[in-house]
Amino acid sequence: MDTTFARYNMASSAIDELYSTGTGFTIKRYTVPGIKDIPVACKILFEDYDCDIVMAFGMPGPMPVDKMSAQIASTGIMEVQLQEKRHIIEVFVHEDEARDDEELAWLSDRRAREHAINAYNIVFDPEKLTENAGTGLRQGFDDKGPAVGGNTYSHRH
Amino acid sequence: MDTTFARYNMASSAIDELYSTGTGFTIKRYTVPGIKDIPVACKILFEDYDCDIVMAFGMPGPMPVDKMSAQIASTGIMEVQLQEKRHIIEVFVHEDEARDDEELAWLSDRRAREHAINAYNIVFDPEKLTENAGTGLRQGFDDKGPAVGGNTYSHRH
Amino acid sequence: MDTTFARYNMASSAIDELYSTGTGFTIKRYTVPGIKDIPVACKILFEDYDCDIVMAFGMPGPMPVDKMSAQIASTGIMEVQLQEKRHIIEVFVHEDEARDDEELAWLSDRRAREHAINAYNIVFDPEKLTENAGTGLRQGFDDKGPAVGGNTYSHRH
Amino acid sequence: MDTTFARYNMASSAIDELYSTGTGFTIKRYTVPGIKDIPVACKILFEDYDCDIVMAFGMPGPMPVDKMSAQIASTGIMEVQLQEKRHIIEVFVHEDEARDDEELAWLSDRRAREHAINAYNIVFDPEKLTENAGTGLRQGFDDKGPAVGGNTYSHRH
Amino acid sequence: MDTTFARYNMASSAIDELYSTGTGFTIKRYTVPGIKDIPVACKILFEDYDCDIVMAFGMPGPMPVDKMSAQIASTGIMEVQLQEKRHIIEVFVHEDEARDDEELAWLSDRRAREHAINAYNIVFDPEKLTENAGTGLRQGFDDKGPAVGGNTYSHRH
Repeated sequence: MDTTFARYNMASSAIDELYSTGTGFTIKRYTVPGIKDIPVACKILFEDYDCDIVMAFGMPGPMPVDKMSAQIASTGIMEVQLQEKRHIIEVFVHEDEARDDEELAWLSDRRAREHAINAYNIVFDPEKLTENAGTGLRQGFDDKGPAVGGNTYSHRH
Repeated sequence: MDTTFARYNMASSAIDELYSTGTGFTIKRYTVPGIKDIPVACKILFEDYDCDIVMAFGMPGPMPVDKMSAQIASTGIMEVQLQEKRHIIEVFVHEDEARDDEELAWLSDRRAREHAINAYNIVFDPEKLTENAGTGLRQGFDDKGPAVGGNTYSHRH
Repeated sequence: MDTTFARYNMASSAIDELYSTGTGFTIKRYTVPGIKDIPVACKILFEDYDCDIVMAFGMPGPMPVDKMSAQIASTGIMEVQLQEKRHIIEVFVHEDEARDDEELAWLSDRRAREHAINAYNIVFDPEKLTENAGTGLRQGFDDKGPAVGGNTYSHRH
Repeated sequence: MDTTFARYNMASSAIDELYSTGTGFTIKRYTVPGIKDIPVACKILFEDYDCDIVMAFGMPGPMPVDKMSAQIASTGIMEVQLQEKRHIIEVFVHEDEARDDEELAWLSDRRAREHAINAYNIVFDPEKLTENAGTGLRQGFDDKGPAVGGNTYSHRH
Repeated sequence: MDTTFARYNMASSAIDELYSTGTGFTIKRYTVPGIKDIPVACKILFEDYDCDIVMAFGMPGPMPVDKMSAQIASTGIMEVQLQEKRHIIEVFVHEDEARDDEELAWLSDRRAREHAINAYNIVFDPEKLTENAGTGLRQGFDDKGPAVGGNTYSHRH
């Protein structure tokens, strides 16, 4: 699920990472012109191709109109998840997150790969996510880590 | 219902508080990568695990893109509540609500615990909430209290 | 339908006003912690208590995050109305509409009461609203009145 | 479909214009307190009164909270159209579009009348709208006209 | 699917381009007054005229109220796509994207034509879009191209 608008081929990075991470899945790729075309394509992937999870790659530009498009796309992605009761991992890299084209390429590649692992864990290994709950993980730039070393009281469950 | 993005393990605080408050319930925990992954996970908790209520813990970052993500997540949480006709207690701590990491940890812990009691009351003791209607309660920072000592006319019902 | 977050007990003002205005109805009160918990509670009031109309009282705080919460709550209230095909009278008093606590209490009381009459008219006397169409009525502060004395051409219907 | 909040009786202007434009229709009027009460009323007009089209008149005030209300109302109006598969002509005049009360009254009257003709054409004469496609028509203030005299290539359809 | 509000007849440009690109389709044109009237018209085109894809042409003005209308229209267009599980290619040209009327006409014509080809490819030749994934294509102004020459690792699928 990616776009011709984006300036980096994030789907290929994610596909590369998924094949490094595990087996037992097949991948269907679907490319649309722009970010607002993504949600209905996600719905088609779930209903016509019976995907268990969808990764949605988009690269919003720096202008207000681009931010609005990203918001509308995200709202649609949310809606599709609720209609299908399945996860869509939204991997958006905003063009203005990076200082230059080189960083943009690096960030896009890294974020796509780290979210590919998230997608893999949601389907095959959900406990791994609970182990990292509240630890400040970030996809792309460095993790922020927990505030003040995390909780210190003892759980009673 | 929490995230690996958040920088404090709020779900553990809430679970701790719930076990201190009462009995007669079981807890299912579900962790997702980020805040926009929460709504569909809430739906899964209601439909596949038959939860009566869900607490959704998230920690939006300080950037505009983070605020937008929080808005979209909240909209999705709203939608799930209406589809399921059950409450989701949204416990979001914005990173920029706190001055530093220490306050962030303190605020996260306190808000999670106070909302855990709200969640408990909605299910087990709804009258307790009406007793406190319009009294300016806040979860985390100090309560603001009622304006001008509350209503002074006599109710006729 | 009110909250423990609000700093004035608006529901009690409205209930007081409704009992002054007429008879032939019963009232069900439902209190939730915050403004975003209101929509699903409205839905429960319509479906499980068979209410004809719901009044939703909320008091958004002055911060951007509070404004966002109000917007999301309003969107949910809109959605519930369309699902149920019944009116919800939203009575929100923004904390920053008033100069101080005293004005806030006065405004909350007055707006709650004037909207209680609107709710009564929608159910029992809808023509009364058409009589006042386009006359610039406000709930709480003074009415603004019509622009330039209203229409001056003759109606042919 | 109008409000007691608005400061001009736009519905009466539109009704006047409709009776000047043609015959073969009947009109049902429904007045609500404020702009956010409009969408569910539109739904009632479609479902309980079997209207073919609804005109929704509203006058958002100049404050940010008024703009937010207008946005939520518009979103609800959109939703109702999609649920009913029928058009709602939204006629909103923002109070701050006019310099003074006199212009506000003039603008409200003119916009209501011009949109009344649009509503008439959608139901009775849809080709008339295609004739004017891309010509920069405005309701109320002067039309802006086409950019650079419109298209110059020859159509082949 | 176009409007009388827009200042350029984009639908005619797109129709011209489609007839140059291929055969095997028929076109239904539907004109509405403004941008917020578009979504329900798209729904009518899908359900009553059984269209496979819809192109929606709009030209939002430069004022904040125009931007809000565009956002609401886009949200409705998104909703219709999800209800119908078919694509709507949204072709919006914001009036303030161009320096003057001449550029506005040029941009409108070019964007309409390039999106017409996108619409054609989605229906008849979807692989063509995947070939261009992540290459920074833009409709109207010059393409931005990929960041740093695109991905350099080898795909293993």
